[in-house]
Amino acid sequence: MKLQHSNIKELLKASLNKIENDMAITNCQLVNVITGTIHNAIVYVHGGYISHVEYDNLDEQINAKTIIDANGKYLIPGFIDSHVHIESSMMTPRNFAKAVINCGTTTVVTDPHEIGNVHGKAGVKYMHDIANGLPMRQLIDIPSCVPSVPNLEFSGADFVADDIIELAQLERVIGLAEVMSYLDVINGEDRMHAILDAAKQRNLYLQGHAPFLTGRNLSAYLAAGPNTCHETRDIFEAKDKFKRGMFIDMRDSSMCKNVPAILEGIKEFRYLDHLCICTDDRESDDILNDGHINDVVRIAIRNGMHPIDAIRSATYNTAREIKIENLGAIAPGFVADMVIIDNLKDINVEKVIFEGNLVSENGKLINKIEDIDHEIENINSVNIKELSIEDLKIKAPIENGIIDVNCMIFKDLQNSLTDLIKLPINVVDGYLDISNDKSLSFVAVINRFDNDNIALAVVKNFGINKGCVSSTVSHDSHNLTMVYHNVDDALICANEIKSIGGGMVSSVDRKILHTLKLKVAGLMSTLCAEELKDDVIAMKQANRELGLIEIANPLLRIVTLALPVIPNVKMSDLGMVDVNSKTIINLFD
Amino acid sequence: MKLQHSNIKELLKASLNKIENDMAITNCQLVNVITGTIHNAIVYVHGGYISHVEYDNLDEQINAKTIIDANGKYLIPGFIDSHVHIESSMMTPRNFAKAVINCGTTTVVTDPHEIGNVHGKAGVKYMHDIANGLPMRQLIDIPSCVPSVPNLEFSGADFVADDIIELAQLERVIGLAEVMSYLDVINGEDRMHAILDAAKQRNLYLQGHAPFLTGRNLSAYLAAGPNTCHETRDIFEAKDKFKRGMFIDMRDSSMCKNVPAILEGIKEFRYLDHLCICTDDRESDDILNDGHINDVVRIAIRNGMHPIDAIRSATYNTAREIKIENLGAIAPGFVADMVIIDNLKDINVEKVIFEGNLVSENGKLINKIEDIDHEIENINSVNIKELSIEDLKIKAPIENGIIDVNCMIFKDLQNSLTDLIKLPINVVDGYLDISNDKSLSFVAVINRFDNDNIALAVVKNFGINKGCVSSTVSHDSHNLTMVYHNVDDALICANEIKSIGGGMVSSVDRKILHTLKLKVAGLMSTLCAEELKDDVIAMKQANRELGLIEIANPLLRIVTLALPVIPNVKMSDLGMVDVNSKTIINLFD
Repeated sequence: MKLQHSNIKELLKASLNKIENDMAITNCQLVNVITGTIHNAIVYVHGGYISHVEYDNLDEQINAKTIIDANGKYLIPGFIDSHVHIESSMMTPRNFAKAVINCGTTTVVTDPHEIGNVHGKAGVKYMHDIANGLPMRQLIDIPSCVPSVPNLEFSGADFVADDIIELAQLERVIGLAEVMSYLDVINGEDRMHAILDAAKQRNLYLQGHAPFLTGRNLSAYLAAGPNTCHETRDIFEAKDKFKRGMFIDMRDSSMCKNVPAILEGIKEFRYLDHLCICTDDRESDDILNDGHINDVVRIAIRNGMHPIDAIRSATYNTAREIKIENLGAIAPGFVADMVIIDNLKDINVEKVIFEGNLVSENGKLINKIEDIDHEIENINSVNIKELSIEDLKIKAPIENGIIDVNCMIFKDLQNSLTDLIKLPINVVDGYLDISNDKSLSFVAVINRFDNDNIALAVVKNFGINKGCVSSTVSHDSHNLTMVYHNVDDALICANEIKSIGGGMVSSVDRKILHTLKLKVAGLMSTLCAEELKDDVIAMKQANRELGLIEIANPLLRIVTLALPVIPNVKMSDLGMVDVNSKTIINLFD
Repeated sequence: MKLQHSNIKELLKASLNKIENDMAITNCQLVNVITGTIHNAIVYVHGGYISHVEYDNLDEQINAKTIIDANGKYLIPGFIDSHVHIESSMMTPRNFAKAVINCGTTTVVTDPHEIGNVHGKAGVKYMHDIANGLPMRQLIDIPSCVPSVPNLEFSGADFVADDIIELAQLERVIGLAEVMSYLDVINGEDRMHAILDAAKQRNLYLQGHAPFLTGRNLSAYLAAGPNTCHETRDIFEAKDKFKRGMFIDMRDSSMCKNVPAILEGIKEFRYLDHLCICTDDRESDDILNDGHINDVVRIAIRNGMHPIDAIRSATYNTAREIKIENLGAIAPGFVADMVIIDNLKDINVEKVIFEGNLVSENGKLINKIEDIDHEIENINSVNIKELSIEDLKIKAPIENGIIDVNCMIFKDLQNSLTDLIKLPINVVDGYLDISNDKSLSFVAVINRFDNDNIALAVVKNFGINKGCVSSTVSHDSHNLTMVYHNVDDALICANEIKSIGGGMVSSVDRKILHTLKLKVAGLMSTLCAEELKDDVIAMKQANRELGLIEIANPLLRIVTLALPVIPNVKMSDLGMVDVNSKTIINLFD
């Protein structure tokens, strides 16, 4: 697929210098990601596209409306994020743009599957429409796995092949997003394959998602179609994926730091053009403090990658992965997305040009990005019934004594992997009582969409030792999820969440510690990064006070507790789930 | 675009080893063109696609109908010729296949514009249909420039945008073929741009043709869309094209040997993935003696290219250039086209596997390729009127004496470049008489399609010094073209050509020296390579006897004489053409 200039014949006149160009960037060291070499050059732009690159006559008369003198600095293509959930930044697409453009990111490939689970197709359309006219390109992959595990959880939507076909009409849709249900893919499950077929029919590229997959399983997954992965964590896995022809989207998110292992895995290879770069999930404070794709490029270089290889991975390689032919390089006919950086080590972004317009300079946007009203931002998506204390307590089959209970146990503090464990737990007056064991918490998953499901269980080693943490960000169904010692605190949190229309709330001793308002689908704030950042930091601090001290990001522990694709035991609004057998586990045998 | 297995779910079962695979290739050194590394491996195939590559458990039990033991030799992807005119081999598509499959070529991207000029759309459809069921893949780019210069020549067809749209329906069409009229492209000429737009609309890739183009002109050409070129001859040109993002199809044809200059031009570059390999025009004897794409790869290696880079250029790079995602590499989900070679220097082809079937072994086809009748092969396409001596003599405006005549002059013997020259020539009884100057010849271009146009002129330094050479292979219009000293010989040749339905004929002293029958469109023989080769050698010998001794290929001098896109003066059936101003030059001022 090529992005098209609105008037090719005018572009050609500009190439030939028969008409004035819109812009010329002079005195730059052009990083040519097609050849892998650096050249002094003048770059001309017309109508948002590169009309000409002058390599030879560097003293020629410049015929352009705007001239940008690069002062001998490096000119590179605009960065492309090969996989990101904007919702994970907890910012709306427009606020997200305000933050990442200054980092040199001119294109992101987004998977709006968080909001897709909440608001269905309307959510995807919102993410598309609200980004119209932004000084960056937010491309969309259609969520492929909504809900993440059909029939084992209920979210706000259920996407089948017809929905994919409908959403493919949206202008900036280019792919099918991370195909997570790898077992359904390799085992030829009908619903999943109908979705894959619909995407192929529409000529969408198929974005993969294959954590820990290697060998024959990976061969089957690739043979089915999806050929990219942003879930590569270890050296052997990186090697195996590359050898099998997969594109690796090397990730550095707020949680997952995969660059060192991947670079170690592929260091023996002669060609790296299947290596791309993504952020997946980065929060506002990390974007403001460290950057966006520019930061991942910097990390790659610090881990020994050749700077041009790293820049290419974040530009041209990704453009080829997502099949946009004239994106990600500075050459005639390519989209004029470019960044001026000061050096090839720190990748400090000085100027950002999007479609031939200077949009950011020294970390500031040139033009204010206006907010746009959208009805979806005003919908309270937390549709839960009036709760009572009784709803949040676990009734035991005995009145008093000790009973064996099937519980989840976290393997460690940093990791979201869990196992099943049978624990003896006190019963007082017919209800489980965990008050004498700080390592235990209750967990509740409360459907906030079309039914009154409430699932309760006990979890060990979650990390809190008092109060309650709660969140409507709860992948992927985004039901209200709460982990608590104290039922009163849980009820306070639930009521607060309901009244604010979604977000995160922590409470202890019947007092709210902090509330993070995420009123857009219960996932996103309407604040911009600078404002949101303080709120996020305060929320993290509140969760630390409840015991989540050693964990890298105290907001993220709860958000994967109800994601029944992560081994081995997770929650859904139907109960505790055996992830591998796809069955519900009873609390009491 | 992806090529599709007929039953993906079965393929996945094969990947997972749940059903028997069709084939396993064991004990091979797999040249992985995605990573650029070589690995011991077992490759499994099902239904024509690679189901699995086993890198780790090399002692595993093999579950496959057919097992091929590679004996520790190299397994590489099947070669792809990025640009070829099958007609130039003077073989039909089926006979061409018989020759090149043994060389490891499993895919060719053909431009049937020779037969397109003769038989129009029916000719293109013939090239498509006759290749159905072959044990190789003949993909088609739709001819973009038929005729090569509209209104300056008349051939058998005239393709406009609607014809492109119609032909794009053919199953194996993937692109728009070499867009030659670069001036029309960069100057925004309507007819040309309508064709480009039609191709873009159909999602065809745009194959370029940009000899000598660099700088702003090349920028404009690329901005218009075509981004490949097989016409790169010199070092600077190679460098400039690469830097501007063009794909270079590095050519070694029977006439043009471009490998050394191109490799010299791009040697400084870090990435070579825009480098592909093609043969363009290779004759039967060259294919039999030297090989096909395997030979060009060999030449590249001998010119210092890393063997894996060279193999990649002839496989995966080309697949990406032509936008077929799962071709040109050995990885799960890719088409199972593979070649076993003995070493990485000589690229001797031992076994060829096409879509998972062994099709050639030790230079012999496994199964005979059957001939198929097609009505087009029986049409005599030489529709010329009954000629007389008078038709082939040039009438002067004076009766006797000497007159200045505008003539073409060849710059040298190896090159097809020409200039205009004014020469004093004898007139005897009202006609030009060149009998006293061996360096001069008459040239006649006789329309063989829908009119009785005959154009005559005088050419200096063509190379013959007696008799007549004649050909219906005469790019691109393929009108009957004759160069002669002796008018009687010319008449004999014309009559012979007409009676055999096209081909090449040489005559001297009123005796035919040799006749090469090319009855299919006047371009192709019905003989297979082994038979045709002797005929071609005899034809070359005949032309040498007429004086074409020092020229590398004595058949090819005449075939570009009527190609009014090569500078500076050429012939058409309308007369002598000023190529640059696109005007007809009168013989007498």
